[in-house]
Amino acid sequence: MGSTPSASYSVTLRVEYPNQAGALGKILTAVGEAGGDVGAVDIVQQGERSIRDITINARDSDHGHRIAEAIEKSPPEIKVLSFSDRTFLAHLGGKIEVKPKMSVRSRDALSMAYTPGVARVCQAVADDPQQAYSLTVKRNTIAVVSDGTAVLGLGDVGPEAAMPVMEGKAMLFKEFANVDAYPICLGTTDTEEIIATVKNLAPGFGGINLEDISSPRCFEIEERLQKELEIPVFHDDQHGTAVVVLAALINSLTIVGKEMKDLTVVVNGVGASGSACVKILLSAGVKNIIGCDSKGIVRPEREDLSPMERWVAENTNPEGLIGELSDALIGADLFLGLSVPDVLTVEHLDSMAENPIVFAMANPDPEIAPEEAEGRARIMATGRSDYPNQINNTLCFPGIFRGALDSRARKMNEEMKLAAAHALAEVIPDEDLSEDYIIPSLFDERIVPSMAKAVAKAAHESGVARPSLEEDVAQTPSPSS
Amino acid sequence: MGSTPSASYSVTLRVEYPNQAGALGKILTAVGEAGGDVGAVDIVQQGERSIRDITINARDSDHGHRIAEAIEKSPPEIKVLSFSDRTFLAHLGGKIEVKPKMSVRSRDALSMAYTPGVARVCQAVADDPQQAYSLTVKRNTIAVVSDGTAVLGLGDVGPEAAMPVMEGKAMLFKEFANVDAYPICLGTTDTEEIIATVKNLAPGFGGINLEDISSPRCFEIEERLQKELEIPVFHDDQHGTAVVVLAALINSLTIVGKEMKDLTVVVNGVGASGSACVKILLSAGVKNIIGCDSKGIVRPEREDLSPMERWVAENTNPEGLIGELSDALIGADLFLGLSVPDVLTVEHLDSMAENPIVFAMANPDPEIAPEEAEGRARIMATGRSDYPNQINNTLCFPGIFRGALDSRARKMNEEMKLAAAHALAEVIPDEDLSEDYIIPSLFDERIVPSMAKAVAKAAHESGVARPSLEEDVAQTPSPSS
Repeated sequence: MGSTPSASYSVTLRVEYPNQAGALGKILTAVGEAGGDVGAVDIVQQGERSIRDITINARDSDHGHRIAEAIEKSPPEIKVLSFSDRTFLAHLGGKIEVKPKMSVRSRDALSMAYTPGVARVCQAVADDPQQAYSLTVKRNTIAVVSDGTAVLGLGDVGPEAAMPVMEGKAMLFKEFANVDAYPICLGTTDTEEIIATVKNLAPGFGGINLEDISSPRCFEIEERLQKELEIPVFHDDQHGTAVVVLAALINSLTIVGKEMKDLTVVVNGVGASGSACVKILLSAGVKNIIGCDSKGIVRPEREDLSPMERWVAENTNPEGLIGELSDALIGADLFLGLSVPDVLTVEHLDSMAENPIVFAMANPDPEIAPEEAEGRARIMATGRSDYPNQINNTLCFPGIFRGALDSRARKMNEEMKLAAAHALAEVIPDEDLSEDYIIPSLFDERIVPSMAKAVAKAAHESGVARPSLEEDVAQTPSPSS
Repeated sequence: MGSTPSASYSVTLRVEYPNQAGALGKILTAVGEAGGDVGAVDIVQQGERSIRDITINARDSDHGHRIAEAIEKSPPEIKVLSFSDRTFLAHLGGKIEVKPKMSVRSRDALSMAYTPGVARVCQAVADDPQQAYSLTVKRNTIAVVSDGTAVLGLGDVGPEAAMPVMEGKAMLFKEFANVDAYPICLGTTDTEEIIATVKNLAPGFGGINLEDISSPRCFEIEERLQKELEIPVFHDDQHGTAVVVLAALINSLTIVGKEMKDLTVVVNGVGASGSACVKILLSAGVKNIIGCDSKGIVRPEREDLSPMERWVAENTNPEGLIGELSDALIGADLFLGLSVPDVLTVEHLDSMAENPIVFAMANPDPEIAPEEAEGRARIMATGRSDYPNQINNTLCFPGIFRGALDSRARKMNEEMKLAAAHALAEVIPDEDLSEDYIIPSLFDERIVPSMAKAVAKAAHESGVARPSLEEDVAQTPSPSS
């Protein structure tokens, strides 16, 4: 798939040129001929020579530089004074800050928020640790924890290089769900050390979002932490994907008129997210799941399986199929790809059941291009924002943690994940559903409130919520400060 | 010392009373007669009966309740509808939040700040880890780390109950020095586990402020972390106090016309902060320091000393004095108390050298009441805000970390601490110095910029600063977004 100019490769060029009629037009023409998309044009200085900042979407980093060269070559006497990569500018100095909720710039404010007044507050929490949920940030705060071993498509880039992603995630938590999230990138990749470190730093947090930790360590780390901590622990790469996939499937089934229990589902790629998808689909009532990896159908007889793949093998493939992906796909209702580009062919699609559903989520290029699948797949979803039906974790993590924090949950359990998926699916009324609209937009403001409500309800009903405290410390609705 | 009404014990009472001439006056009179200080009076509702929120400074928690009772007893038909403790209200839900520096509520912004654009930024940091100082929050961020074992005067209250203090500290870092500080309260008190945990969480931070960790573990934890990490580590309870004490002493000597090298200094209490004071005074050129504890003068022959006390014993008391505090004080120029209330007597003061200086910093009640010392001590300082010359760590930690971060320092070394003390002292011009004004107010806005500059300079000169990176990712002064 040829890439199109996008904001993630946008540059701002500061251009100086003679103040003559038509000069700016020539520059913009040069940009267009070089394949760039012109966005904002801002004036910096007007005089004998003009200076303007021109923001241009390019296809990639090199393309941005080629556009700048094309401008300099276009007459008359045009100079590119500076070249700014807008994505790098957006990250300069980091993307989040830690702000007081009130000013402490007076003696009185200081004596309440800090010493000596704070001592009474500390004592109140010491006397009743549950007061931490009233009198500290714990009730609205999660740690976004990564060891930097499986960052985006980049792999093991280390903790410092993982920070830009974790900061971005913290931004999304706040913007979408008013959750205060702080990024913690760990200087160790040892399973036991990660577990010990997260346990040690947990007291101030109301939840732990694990992120971009490579398989198979991510399984044990999440499982152990969830067992040993009394706050929700959630590896987003696994369960965020699973929740959104289930939501997309729920709506897809409404369109094609099938039921969970009758489906044949092929999951291609049973790593971290694939195995989490298998789990949630089983919980949702799917009976016939066939897992595949690059060596074909995953089944207990194979001796090359990791413990997690073995779990998949032992809990799927009830008919005991043997063979390749192509064998598994015959008559399947859903292809769920969490693997690599271009492994799905039109012949595969033609071998599937009627009204085949394809969720092709390899990043950045899906298992089959939507253009190729068109007319063959009844419903097609990918992880990309430039096609319909984007399955993206950002649809899940803000809302599911909002609900977990609102219910002061001790765990993030299967009931809460299922509730999140159903709530996400229900954001789109049945009458609005279509093949191109099975999942709401990331920016749909209905998502977080309804998901949070459903998740909190599930937490209460499944017994992992903490009772809300009578906040007898503050009986008036707001202080008259 | 009898306590006076203060904001840290202020309450807001919602009071309903008949709307009659003089009714409010009677209520306020009742408050005054009960010993409360009336602050704001806000109207909530006006009608046949009036409702007002009355904010009152009380002496302590009980006093607040007694004032409310006094109001209810005062005629005519007055009802206290609600009672709010303003200090607790200030802490409700925690005191800090994590905010994005820019909005990500559009597809373009998201594609730059998060996926897919962020991948290029991660790769840039992976290729050159020093870029973490340009492209992540590292350059402006410190962790405020405590295990909750020595919180204020409360002692070992545990990590959850320490959070209100650490959040308060984070507020002060941001308000006073624009440092982003995040509180991490640890669920372990084991020295090795604390060291391992802090090392593991350090990659995203530009510095570590250790806080309220009990002695003697705090010594090894700080020393090991500073040795094993490449960012500044600073136990504020020790060195924050030491820096401010030295600043106060520098200005005191200008007033009394003495020099460091000629002083005899008695340090009473050689725990965490006492031993740090000894160290910085030695660095500053004081030759004759005598350490004391509850058993008298600290000297190498004593067998009841901790390793840190032994260090003090071996590096002080050059004349080999033996005896009690009273023996040490004969002819001393400075009494530096970091101990317990009321151990210093007027007889002690009378035995000191001419123009004696007393820094009596036991909290909340000093080693001698300023009223008692008056006329005997030439200069008197305490830790309290209700007397002149408050020696408070808040005078140091924002500015010293601002300087350390600005210089991207690898360490917090002795040179930087001395520079911080001198810069703090110099905030007050010599001609403005007086016995009651040896140290600036916490709210003096000159402190942080001048301390930061001096500390950064010391970091550069002592070779622990990192070179500033050419920020070639962004050549224009600001993005035209």
